[in-house]
Amino acid sequence: MRTIDLRSDTVTRPTPAMRRAMAEAEVGDDVYREDPTVNRLEALAAETLGCERAVFMPSGTMTNQVALMVHLKRGAEVIAPEGAHIYEFEPGAIGVLSGGVPRLVPAPYGVPDLEALRRAIHTSPHQAPTGLIALENTHNLAGGTVVPLEVQRKVQEIARTAGLPTHLDGARLFNAATYLKVPAREVAAGFDTVSVCLSKGLGAPVGSLLLLPKALEPEARRYRKMLGGGMRQAGVLAAAGIVALQEGPAHLERDHQMARALAEGLVRLGLGVDLKAVQTNMVYARVPEAPRFVARLAALGVRANALGTDRVRFVTHRDLDDADIPQALERIAQALERTSA
Amino acid sequence: MRTIDLRSDTVTRPTPAMRRAMAEAEVGDDVYREDPTVNRLEALAAETLGCERAVFMPSGTMTNQVALMVHLKRGAEVIAPEGAHIYEFEPGAIGVLSGGVPRLVPAPYGVPDLEALRRAIHTSPHQAPTGLIALENTHNLAGGTVVPLEVQRKVQEIARTAGLPTHLDGARLFNAATYLKVPAREVAAGFDTVSVCLSKGLGAPVGSLLLLPKALEPEARRYRKMLGGGMRQAGVLAAAGIVALQEGPAHLERDHQMARALAEGLVRLGLGVDLKAVQTNMVYARVPEAPRFVARLAALGVRANALGTDRVRFVTHRDLDDADIPQALERIAQALERTSA
Amino acid sequence: MRTIDLRSDTVTRPTPAMRRAMAEAEVGDDVYREDPTVNRLEALAAETLGCERAVFMPSGTMTNQVALMVHLKRGAEVIAPEGAHIYEFEPGAIGVLSGGVPRLVPAPYGVPDLEALRRAIHTSPHQAPTGLIALENTHNLAGGTVVPLEVQRKVQEIARTAGLPTHLDGARLFNAATYLKVPAREVAAGFDTVSVCLSKGLGAPVGSLLLLPKALEPEARRYRKMLGGGMRQAGVLAAAGIVALQEGPAHLERDHQMARALAEGLVRLGLGVDLKAVQTNMVYARVPEAPRFVARLAALGVRANALGTDRVRFVTHRDLDDADIPQALERIAQALERTSA
Amino acid sequence: MRTIDLRSDTVTRPTPAMRRAMAEAEVGDDVYREDPTVNRLEALAAETLGCERAVFMPSGTMTNQVALMVHLKRGAEVIAPEGAHIYEFEPGAIGVLSGGVPRLVPAPYGVPDLEALRRAIHTSPHQAPTGLIALENTHNLAGGTVVPLEVQRKVQEIARTAGLPTHLDGARLFNAATYLKVPAREVAAGFDTVSVCLSKGLGAPVGSLLLLPKALEPEARRYRKMLGGGMRQAGVLAAAGIVALQEGPAHLERDHQMARALAEGLVRLGLGVDLKAVQTNMVYARVPEAPRFVARLAALGVRANALGTDRVRFVTHRDLDDADIPQALERIAQALERTSA
Repeated sequence: MRTIDLRSDTVTRPTPAMRRAMAEAEVGDDVYREDPTVNRLEALAAETLGCERAVFMPSGTMTNQVALMVHLKRGAEVIAPEGAHIYEFEPGAIGVLSGGVPRLVPAPYGVPDLEALRRAIHTSPHQAPTGLIALENTHNLAGGTVVPLEVQRKVQEIARTAGLPTHLDGARLFNAATYLKVPAREVAAGFDTVSVCLSKGLGAPVGSLLLLPKALEPEARRYRKMLGGGMRQAGVLAAAGIVALQEGPAHLERDHQMARALAEGLVRLGLGVDLKAVQTNMVYARVPEAPRFVARLAALGVRANALGTDRVRFVTHRDLDDADIPQALERIAQALERTSA
Repeated sequence: MRTIDLRSDTVTRPTPAMRRAMAEAEVGDDVYREDPTVNRLEALAAETLGCERAVFMPSGTMTNQVALMVHLKRGAEVIAPEGAHIYEFEPGAIGVLSGGVPRLVPAPYGVPDLEALRRAIHTSPHQAPTGLIALENTHNLAGGTVVPLEVQRKVQEIARTAGLPTHLDGARLFNAATYLKVPAREVAAGFDTVSVCLSKGLGAPVGSLLLLPKALEPEARRYRKMLGGGMRQAGVLAAAGIVALQEGPAHLERDHQMARALAEGLVRLGLGVDLKAVQTNMVYARVPEAPRFVARLAALGVRANALGTDRVRFVTHRDLDDADIPQALERIAQALERTSA
Repeated sequence: MRTIDLRSDTVTRPTPAMRRAMAEAEVGDDVYREDPTVNRLEALAAETLGCERAVFMPSGTMTNQVALMVHLKRGAEVIAPEGAHIYEFEPGAIGVLSGGVPRLVPAPYGVPDLEALRRAIHTSPHQAPTGLIALENTHNLAGGTVVPLEVQRKVQEIARTAGLPTHLDGARLFNAATYLKVPAREVAAGFDTVSVCLSKGLGAPVGSLLLLPKALEPEARRYRKMLGGGMRQAGVLAAAGIVALQEGPAHLERDHQMARALAEGLVRLGLGVDLKAVQTNMVYARVPEAPRFVARLAALGVRANALGTDRVRFVTHRDLDDADIPQALERIAQALERTSA
Repeated sequence: MRTIDLRSDTVTRPTPAMRRAMAEAEVGDDVYREDPTVNRLEALAAETLGCERAVFMPSGTMTNQVALMVHLKRGAEVIAPEGAHIYEFEPGAIGVLSGGVPRLVPAPYGVPDLEALRRAIHTSPHQAPTGLIALENTHNLAGGTVVPLEVQRKVQEIARTAGLPTHLDGARLFNAATYLKVPAREVAAGFDTVSVCLSKGLGAPVGSLLLLPKALEPEARRYRKMLGGGMRQAGVLAAAGIVALQEGPAHLERDHQMARALAEGLVRLGLGVDLKAVQTNMVYARVPEAPRFVARLAALGVRANALGTDRVRFVTHRDLDDADIPQALERIAQALERTSA
C-alpha cells in the first residue's frame, strides 16, 4: 500500500533534475563568498523577487530570525498576526536570539485587523518600543490563507508612518502569488525584508533565502554566522534550489486544486472544513479526538498532522499522484467509520 | 489650589514614622547580608506571607523579572493573563533577561479562562516549552480587580498536574487581601514565588520583596546582583519598608472606599465606568479624547493617567484627604463641561 | 572590642548629615521624573563631572551594565583591562544583558597596554565586532591604582580613530581625582559614558550615577526600567547622595593616607605588599593560606577579604578612627604570630 | 596557472563518490526524524566516536554553540584555552545564544595550563559561576596542535571534581587521532559533548555532528531548531557526510606530511615557523606585512590567510596534488623576493 503523506509540503523529495544539479554543481567555500552556485542562486532570487540582495540559509526559521535580529533592538516588540509561525513554531527564538517580545493582533484568515495593528504600536516610554511589523503570506496556521496585496500595502503604510520596518514571512510566498495570479515580486514588494523557502512546495531538499536591501546584508551575514548558518560548499544545496526556484512555482496551481478537491471531499464526509480558508495547498478540518483519528488514519496509509485536540491539517504537494487525493478520501472515510462504529 | 494626584498609588510619600525609621535605621552592607534592617524586613515579610524566604529589591519589576529568570529556561514560555504587568509594563524584560516568550490567555477582570490556560500549555517539541504560569492579583490593567482564591487554587492545580511552577505578581497583594477580608498569606498561598511591593498602596518610598522557597534563594540573589539590585546600606529603605508592611495594610480599606465613591461620582457625571471592576483602589473610566481631557484636568488640579485614546485611570491612596474625592469630582465635572462646551 | 572593618569602602554608613537629609528630603515619583531631590542630585552630578546628563541608579553594577547595553549591539565585544570589575564582579551580566563578549588586554596596575589594546580591535567579518572600549579608574583588582590622564586620552584617541565609544567605570573616580590632585571632571573628560558610585568612599548608603550625553539618556532610562532600577520616591536616597557628593571627596585624602600607613606597617610585618600599587585606599597583601588567615583575623576583630588562596585585600574608608590602623596592625601581627607558631 | 588554495581545509570539494552518494541518497523529512540517511549518519558517527547519540547540523559553529546552550545556565562562565574557536571565530555567539561569558586560560600549543584552569573555577557568589570546561583538539589558532590524551584526562578529572561538564571542540578531532595514532573514539572519550566537522579535512561539502549522551538529545534538538538548524531532506548532505566519515580519515596522514614539507620549505626560505607546532595540517609563519604578502602571493596563484599584521596561515588538505607543495614553495620564494627587492 502506497503511503499518502499529507503532513506537510516539506516532505517533498528532490526531483531527478535537482539530484542531477546537485551532483554536477560547481562549488566553493560560501563562508568566503566563493561558492559560484550559491552566488548564482542568491542573484536569481534577488532578481525574481525584486530585492537588492538575497542570503541563502539552511532553514526558514533562520531566515526569519535573522531578519528579526537585524530589525529589532533588544527588548523591542514585533507586531505579528496571531498564529504567526515566527511566534508559534520557531520555539522561543524571538526571546533568546533578539531579546524581542511578540505583540499579536487578531487576524482572521491571517489578515491582520488594521485598527488593532495601529493601536498595537507603542510610543510610551513605560512600554517596550515597537521595533517591527511582520506579516505571513500565505498564513500557515490560518489555513494557508492569502493576505491581499492591498492589505499588505496598508500595513506597510502604517509602518512607514510610524517609522517602523516591515518583514514578510513568505515561506510560502509563491503559493500566495499563484493564488493571486501575480508575479512573486508583487507579493514581496514594499517590505524591508522577505523570507522565502525553497524546501516547501517548491520541492528543494534544504534551503531558504532572506531577501533584503544591500545595506542590511553585512549584518544579516554576521548573524547567519553567529547562528551557525555559515555553510561551506553549500552549492550542492543551492543547485537544487535553483531548479526549485525556476521550475517549482509552475507546480503550485496543481497543489491548490488538489487541496480544493480534498476539502470538498472532506465536507461530503461530514467533516467541518471552512472552505473559505482553503485557498492554497492546505486544508484544516475539525475532527473530534484528532490525535486518535490521525493515528488510525496512519494505519490506513494516510499521514496528516493533528493540531491540538480537535483539528487535523492536510497539505498537498508535488510528490502526490493524481490518484492520491481520491484514494486518501476513501481511507479517511474508512477511518471515520471505525470511529463512529 | 491643592493638587489631587490620582495617577497612581506609587506617588505616596513616606510618612513621618517612615522618615524617622529611616533616619534611625541600623544599617550594614546588604551585599554581604549584614544589614540588620534588611534582614529584619525580609524575615518579617516571609513570616507575614507564609513563605520560607524573602529577598529585598529596589522595584517590583526586578522582583518579577528575577522570578522569571529563576523559573524559565531560555526560550521557554510564560503563560500570563492578558494585560499582565510583566508583559505590558516591564518593557521588553521578558525577552532580554530570560530569553522567555509570553503566552497570554483571555482574562476578563484579570481572571484567566481556565480552559484557555490549560490549552496554552505546550508539549510538542516543535513549539517553545511552557516554563511557568503567572497570575496578577490584584490585576492592574483589568481595573485593580481581584482574582478569587478558588481560581488561584485551580490554576495552581493545573500547573502542578503539568509539572509547572507558578508565580504571583502580587504588587498589590494586600489590596486583594483587604477586598477578600483574608490574611495576606492566604493570597500568597500555593505559589512557588510571589512578588509584593512596599512602595504602592503601603506607602514606602522604595522597595519590593520576592518571596520564595529557600532552595531558590541563592539563584535569586545571584540574578539580583546581575541586574544591579545589590544595594549596600539598603537598611535605610528597609526601615521604611518595615513600617509600610506593619502599618500600611490597615489603610487600604479606606483607599477602596474612596475609589468606590469616585467611581459612583463619575457614573453620575455620565462617564462610562464598569462598576463591577471597581473592587480595590482603581477606577478606569471611558472618556473620549482621553489625553486632551487629562491635560485639561491637570490644569484644574487633578492628575490622572490616560490609557490609549479613550480611557482614564484614577487611583486612590493614603496621601489623599477626606475632602479630595468630592473635590476631584467637582473639578472633573468642570473639565467635562468645558469639553462639551 | 571595636571591630575594624577593612573589607571595603562600601561598608561605610550614612553620616548624621545624610540621615538628616534623608529624613527631610522632598520626594516625588522618580519614574515620572518628579522627584525633586533625584533631579537635583542628577543635575549636581552632571555639573560636577562635566557631562550633559546623569541618571541615578541603585548600584554601580547597574550603571555599568546599562552603559554596556547602550553602547553594544548584541554579539559585540567590549575591550577592557584585565581584572575589570565589569567582567569579574558583575556576574555574567555582560553576556545576559548585552549579549556582549569581553576582550581583556594586559593592564599592569590597571593601565592597559596600548599596543595590545589597538590589536584587540576587530575588523574581520569572521569575528565579533568591537563595540566599546572600557577603562576602570581607579582599578579595583589591580590595587586601587590610578590610570594616568594621559593614558586615558590615548585610549580615547585610539577609540575615536576606530569609531568606537568609550566608557569609564569610575566607581572610585573621586579617589583617582584625589590622587591626581585634579577636579573630578578632568578624570571624566573625554569618555562617552562614565559611572560613579556614591556608596563607596563617598559614604552614601545606596546609589550610583551614570553620566552620559543627552542623546543617550532615553535609552539609558529605558534599560534602567527594564533591569528594575526604576525606583519611586528615590529622593530619600538621593538626599544622602547629594551630601556624599558635596562632602565626601574631601575625606578621601585621609583614606589614602591610612592605606599608605597600613601598607607600610604590613611590609614591616614581613608581608608582601607592592607599595607601588598602594595609591589610593586599598592594600593588597600576599599572605599564605589567605582564607584561614582572614578567619583568624576576624576572631581578633579585624575584617578583610581573601582573594583566592594567597591574597588579602584591605580597604580604608571614612568610618575608621585615627586609632584604627595602628590597632589593626597590632592585631594582624598577632594573627601572623599564631600562624607561624 | 593552477591556483593552489592553502587558506583552509574547508575549501575541499565533494569527491565523485560523495556526489554520487548525494544524487542517490534516500531522503525524508529530518525535522520529523524520518530522513533515513541522516539517521544512518548519526548512528555511524555515534558508534565511531563511542558516544550515545549524534545530531547532524549545518556547521561546526552550530554544534559548538548548541553544546554551550545545553551546558550553560545564563550568566555562567565557560573555561576555554586562549585562542579557542568558540571565542575567536563564532562571532559573539557565546553572549547572545547562551548569555555565557568566556574565561580563557593560558594554553601554549593549545594545551591548557592545568593550574590556571583549576584556579579559573569560581565558587564565590559574587562572581559568575563556572558552567563548563571546553577544550579544542586539534587547536586551530595554536597551529593545528594536538592536546595529549593525558592532558584531556586530567582536565576531565578537574571538571569531575568540581562537578562541571566538559565539551570538546573536535572540529579536527580526526587530525588529532591521526597524529596520535589512536582511534577517533579515544580522542572523544570522557567528554560530555563533542563536536566533529565533516566539511574540513574529511571533505564533505557541509555538515557537523554534535555527539552527546541520550539524556541531552531532546534539548540539543530543541536548540538546533531554535537556531534554524532544522533542515528538511538533509539526507542529501548526510550522504556525502557518510562517505567523508568512512573514507576521509585515511587521507589525513598525507595532509600532515604535506604540511610538514611546507613548513620545512618555509624555514629554508628564511621564514619564522615554529616547527614544534606543525603537528597536523596547518603551518603558521611569521611574515612581515602579512596582508600585503598574502595579496602578492595570491597574484602568483597561491592563496593563504593573513592573521593580524605579521602571521600567515597555510592549511593542507586532500584537494592538493602531490606537486602542489613544491610549486607553492617556489611561488612563495618569488613573492618574498619581490618584497625584499
